[in-house]
Amino acid sequence: MNEDVSGVTKEAISQAFRELQEEIIVGLEKADGAVKFTTEPWQHTTTGGGLTRVAANGRIIEKGGVNFSAVGGSMPEFMKTNHQITDSEFFATGVSIVLHSVNPHVPIIHMNVRYFETSGGTSWFGGGIDLTPHYVVPDDAQRFHEILRSVCNRFDPDFYPRFKQWADDYFFIPHRHETRGVGGIFFDHLKPDNAQEKTRFFQFVMAVGRSFLDCYVPFALSRCEAPFSQKEKVWQLLRRGRYAEFNLVYDRGTRFGLETGGRTESILMSLPPLARWAYDFKPEPGSPEAETLGWLRKGVEWI
Amino acid sequence: MNEDVSGVTKEAISQAFRELQEEIIVGLEKADGAVKFTTEPWQHTTTGGGLTRVAANGRIIEKGGVNFSAVGGSMPEFMKTNHQITDSEFFATGVSIVLHSVNPHVPIIHMNVRYFETSGGTSWFGGGIDLTPHYVVPDDAQRFHEILRSVCNRFDPDFYPRFKQWADDYFFIPHRHETRGVGGIFFDHLKPDNAQEKTRFFQFVMAVGRSFLDCYVPFALSRCEAPFSQKEKVWQLLRRGRYAEFNLVYDRGTRFGLETGGRTESILMSLPPLARWAYDFKPEPGSPEAETLGWLRKGVEWI
Repeated sequence: MNEDVSGVTKEAISQAFRELQEEIIVGLEKADGAVKFTTEPWQHTTTGGGLTRVAANGRIIEKGGVNFSAVGGSMPEFMKTNHQITDSEFFATGVSIVLHSVNPHVPIIHMNVRYFETSGGTSWFGGGIDLTPHYVVPDDAQRFHEILRSVCNRFDPDFYPRFKQWADDYFFIPHRHETRGVGGIFFDHLKPDNAQEKTRFFQFVMAVGRSFLDCYVPFALSRCEAPFSQKEKVWQLLRRGRYAEFNLVYDRGTRFGLETGGRTESILMSLPPLARWAYDFKPEPGSPEAETLGWLRKGVEWI
Repeated sequence: MNEDVSGVTKEAISQAFRELQEEIIVGLEKADGAVKFTTEPWQHTTTGGGLTRVAANGRIIEKGGVNFSAVGGSMPEFMKTNHQITDSEFFATGVSIVLHSVNPHVPIIHMNVRYFETSGGTSWFGGGIDLTPHYVVPDDAQRFHEILRSVCNRFDPDFYPRFKQWADDYFFIPHRHETRGVGGIFFDHLKPDNAQEKTRFFQFVMAVGRSFLDCYVPFALSRCEAPFSQKEKVWQLLRRGRYAEFNLVYDRGTRFGLETGGRTESILMSLPPLARWAYDFKPEPGSPEAETLGWLRKGVEWI
């Protein structure tokens, strides 16, 4: 392994992720005012473990988690096959967030930052933030994307357009012909060529992680006391059904976790507290629900 | 194609399945007393189509479907790869049922009978019935299995033990380390060697299909008026969450349908009207809920 490529260590990265988890939880508990995250450390079957922190029945957050993990072990067979890796061991660390809101006018939000390293010294970063409003508000979607673009632009002007499109492609539900929400940014396999680049990528994923509270809290605070009808609550539960479909059928992190014997309860913290399915539900033409469906497509330039 | 192997035609099979659908719906509407199944014909993108019949908000049935389809077209690539098929066209017909009940003391039931044929003349049958009680009642599970065994024994004494084990293996949720329910029978790729055997397999799947009302209605009627608490309703919604997990993550029919551009609303009629997820929910030791979990394992000999 070339020392020039090693750069920042996995210990430093997982430590920073752990601190990021704490920082975000402090911010969320303060914003919510009524919610308290639990703290549950767990051990991986091979090496390492995680700290699962979930919350339920808050003022803003109905159910959610801000999870940290740092695990290692033998390289899974499908990683060897799919990524042509010959190294025998892996290390992976990350922070994953999904928050389901009480109020249908507060969006579902998801954030993930992750780092993967092989015993041979290959390493990469991945992550992103995306927003799933039950009711799309274009101005909010624009402000959300502006925050992400400004984070990206501090590192590379190509990042936002590339990672925005990647999110459109990734958070897509083919069998529904709709995107999960208004997208955001998504990136994977950011492989540094040298130590300097590794540091820069690390700083980038940390900047993404640190932008999380800005991406969520102002929107949540501005809408969490908004009145809502029973009809709007039903619509929220139907949209959560779609969220569950995406996560269980397509989400790579979820399937990777379930198939490699990850900790099920931590992985599936992303599932909604309550979800609804109705046969062939179609909102009335011209209704806010129909308008939201009209926005759930790839390639919308929110900014 | 050898005429001796052709036996009963695909037209005869799909016609019988269509009649089976009708017969079951008549029986269910009569038993429920308050529910009316909708009738929605649809066309497949290539050849054929189906008749989707769903119901909601009945006395017994909260949401469910009894769907028929008969479709054909170009052989999907993965069928060629996974089953080493070189034939260019396929035909598939079947009836699929999932019923979610209002009352937590009435189980979820699933039934499927299906027939698949290639343009080269290879054909096979598949199907099964399985029961997912929110609260396992061993006597009911025994009676349910006895009905299935008696249907199987009219054809082959090996069928019940083989197909019972197949159901245990198939309806298993690895990431939860539990079976979906109390199992039943499941079989696939019943390939006839000659016309006589084809007729016999056809008669067998029809007998399975015709046993459906016996497998469901008496249990549903005996429990649909049972009083239940809010706690039992919550447990039902949690079990439905597991049902959704199995169908979206593992069920081959669901994934096959979604991945081959099947009709999403017909495929996903299996999803519950309302489902709940709670982080790391553990029932109190010794409670009826904990007892039910104790039964959700492979290899229970109910009879």
